Amino acid sequence: MRKQGKWFWMCGITALVLGLLVAALPAGQPANAGVDNAYYGKKAKYVFYFIGDGMAMPQVNATEIYKGALNGKDPMASEKVNFTTFPYLGMQTTHSANTFITESAAAGTALATGHKTNNDVLGVDPTKTIKFKSMAEMAKEKGMKVGIVSSVSLDHATPAAFYAHQPTRKNYYEIGLELAYSGFDYFAGGGLLAPTGPKKDKPSVLDIAGQQGYKILQDQAEFLKLTPQAGKVIAIQEELAAEQAMPYEIDRTQQLSLADLTRKGIEMLDNPNGFFMMVEGGKIDWACHANDAVTSIRDVVALENAVTEALKFYAKHPNETLIVITGDHETGGMTIGFAGTEYSTAFNKLSKQQISFEEFDKKIRAYRKAVGPQGANLSDWLPVLAQDYGLTDLTEYDQARLQAALAVSMLESKQRSKDEHSYLLYGTYEPFSVTVTHILNQKAGIGWTTYAHSGVAVPVYAQGVGGELFQGYYDNTDVARKIMSVMGVR
Amino acid sequence: MRKQGKWFWMCGITALVLGLLVAALPAGQPANAGVDNAYYGKKAKYVFYFIGDGMAMPQVNATEIYKGALNGKDPMASEKVNFTTFPYLGMQTTHSANTFITESAAAGTALATGHKTNNDVLGVDPTKTIKFKSMAEMAKEKGMKVGIVSSVSLDHATPAAFYAHQPTRKNYYEIGLELAYSGFDYFAGGGLLAPTGPKKDKPSVLDIAGQQGYKILQDQAEFLKLTPQAGKVIAIQEELAAEQAMPYEIDRTQQLSLADLTRKGIEMLDNPNGFFMMVEGGKIDWACHANDAVTSIRDVVALENAVTEALKFYAKHPNETLIVITGDHETGGMTIGFAGTEYSTAFNKLSKQQISFEEFDKKIRAYRKAVGPQGANLSDWLPVLAQDYGLTDLTEYDQARLQAALAVSMLESKQRSKDEHSYLLYGTYEPFSVTVTHILNQKAGIGWTTYAHSGVAVPVYAQGVGGELFQGYYDNTDVARKIMSVMGVR
Repeated sequence: MRKQGKWFWMCGITALVLGLLVAALPAGQPANAGVDNAYYGKKAKYVFYFIGDGMAMPQVNATEIYKGALNGKDPMASEKVNFTTFPYLGMQTTHSANTFITESAAAGTALATGHKTNNDVLGVDPTKTIKFKSMAEMAKEKGMKVGIVSSVSLDHATPAAFYAHQPTRKNYYEIGLELAYSGFDYFAGGGLLAPTGPKKDKPSVLDIAGQQGYKILQDQAEFLKLTPQAGKVIAIQEELAAEQAMPYEIDRTQQLSLADLTRKGIEMLDNPNGFFMMVEGGKIDWACHANDAVTSIRDVVALENAVTEALKFYAKHPNETLIVITGDHETGGMTIGFAGTEYSTAFNKLSKQQISFEEFDKKIRAYRKAVGPQGANLSDWLPVLAQDYGLTDLTEYDQARLQAALAVSMLESKQRSKDEHSYLLYGTYEPFSVTVTHILNQKAGIGWTTYAHSGVAVPVYAQGVGGELFQGYYDNTDVARKIMSVMGVR
Repeated sequence: MRKQGKWFWMCGITALVLGLLVAALPAGQPANAGVDNAYYGKKAKYVFYFIGDGMAMPQVNATEIYKGALNGKDPMASEKVNFTTFPYLGMQTTHSANTFITESAAAGTALATGHKTNNDVLGVDPTKTIKFKSMAEMAKEKGMKVGIVSSVSLDHATPAAFYAHQPTRKNYYEIGLELAYSGFDYFAGGGLLAPTGPKKDKPSVLDIAGQQGYKILQDQAEFLKLTPQAGKVIAIQEELAAEQAMPYEIDRTQQLSLADLTRKGIEMLDNPNGFFMMVEGGKIDWACHANDAVTSIRDVVALENAVTEALKFYAKHPNETLIVITGDHETGGMTIGFAGTEYSTAFNKLSKQQISFEEFDKKIRAYRKAVGPQGANLSDWLPVLAQDYGLTDLTEYDQARLQAALAVSMLESKQRSKDEHSYLLYGTYEPFSVTVTHILNQKAGIGWTTYAHSGVAVPVYAQGVGGELFQGYYDNTDVARKIMSVMGVR
């Protein structure tokens, strides 16, 4: 009996210890438990983390062919995107905790904290109760300076994943508050989607941030004169496009570029304790949602130019700097290959696109207002299509598609058919606009399968301290764990 | 004057030497001149080279989700394809010398010889004058045994790239002759497309092969009894499907599998001088051309099972064996993401597909013969779609698409419209059949953009001796050069 009793207690204690150990394991384990994310070398003092939202291999490959088509007379010319020449490449799986096709909150959480969560959930576990600490928060605790840069609003899912913890990515006001209290050193990008709450009845998060010691900037000239003496900064761009984002690169005129914000970030963050900077190319995704290849490609180039700024810094600190570039998921089901063009491509046809779908939409709205459904005529648009897209070789079938789409675009939103076929043709986009980019893209040899994201693996490019760790095939949570390890935080 | 004369001669000789060096460089330089393909370790004695024709990341990712959906009740279950757990991963660019979207002759030439050529050209340069030596020919010269295995005909572009040199991949008779004279030790797979020439008036290449010492087998029982004492072997399968290929895995009953041919190959080739074996999963591509996801996925699994045979051999010779798995290009512009299903997938809907599009086509042809255009009725097909595909949840829009496609499928080929819209809908496939797989795939969340190939980068998985060389981002020609280096041939 005594012996049985002893075994009983020993088993009970073992079970308790095991239970506590299991409970102590972080929730949302990475998918590839076999992947080794530990870095044993000298830690990186400076870490750059570039995230192309919606950028996977097709977007990068298409950019290389587009650049070649712009610059070369050789139809086989292509020009490398700078980060594709980095010495280390890996591929990451992107599924969220509840879908094979992730969105930016779950993907951002994985890339920022190393934990899986459900779609729409930001920086907390799927039960929305456990907060996950991000590598940016860890870096700040360690005494490094931290910068968050994005071409979209600063409270959008990807940048927010580095400082916020919310049951839904749509809690823009709460996210703004977390930004204000983050203590991070440098925020630069678009604006905020609900700085005074959804009903505009709350204290402005920018005022609160000011009370927390932030210098708030919305003036371009002032931004350019910024020096590290300014302290903590939130720099919102002076001229914003839709949804508080910076303009698409293709539409940008005098406004600051993502590279400008990155360059200034380096200047502001450089200090003896090192820094962590996340830079998001957020509108690659938006353009791919709209199936507008050129606009997305031009935003990949904007991200590449931002990487160039990191490379200049890297050249001065090669033994202390890590640069990682990845995407959070693919958007659009983009591919280089369309049924109608078979084995050929003609990216030279893309070279004449002058404006984004967003700017083109404005022309359609103005036309609708001017002529209405009865007065619309495709012939009015032929010179515009030639001017804005270089589209002059329209087949009968193209014209029929454009005709049909224009008719729908002349209707008010509530009059438009919401059936399955219409959704497949136009998504939630301006029918005439998305038909124009579909036709242009298809002539170039680019196909799309969705207005949402796709679930394929995404490349990771790395250079510098610990870069070798980023080789292989692993999960998006592993990307975060690898960076944390190289940065010496956990 | 004498001094000037000396410099003149020295410059002249230097120029001459440089000129000769340049001339000696192989034609068709790899795209990434900066990639280091040199392996300095002990050479691999046994080399397995698996090529999934048309297999890129989407096909592999889709297979993992499909396997999970078959085996798991958890909607997020997925099951790894064995080679995705290999320690080394790289990505290769696939463009040919004249297109960004390659086909299998140019891609096979790159993967077999390390040289770019034009689409449709096999084992020779774009001018069709310079022969490129393949790694299989080099291995044979070195005294290794060589095996070529394919699920399609043995004279198809991918297997042929390892032994043939022809201005066009369509020279099937000449390719067959090169096979007969190759001296390779083990050929196993489908049949030959023109063993007696296009007009069937030439001496059979199988007779010629027999004269060259090959044992020709077409009997399954005899094949299974084969021992290395048989010498050189050409094993054509007893029951072939269309185009002299082995059946699709999904349609296979008693016939030998790709794994069976691989296992026997290992038995036949194993010898003290080592061996090189190329195994092609050739019908992944064919199924993707037809946009039939399940049939392609099942053929990825057939390739995985063949890899399992290599892994059993590897377990006995881990320090002497290299296993490389890649694709020659992506086919179909396949992606995990479709406009109609947005962020959700439902791969469980794929689990009930019982037959390939090819077998379904036979039913359509029989029906056309039986009822003709006037008697066709979609209601006849609803039980068939439920039985063969598990398709029961058809929307009105689905039914309209099926109705329209069935009407076209009831016409003779020459009566069918060849216009742009029809081609986009059906390619050159049986309209009713391709519409059925499109609808099924789309309900599962799989989209397609083309009936041809796409130009995106393709993964390379490696394990064993020199495997680390296959990490990174490089060109398809580099894959060949890396294998040559690890095998110690050039």
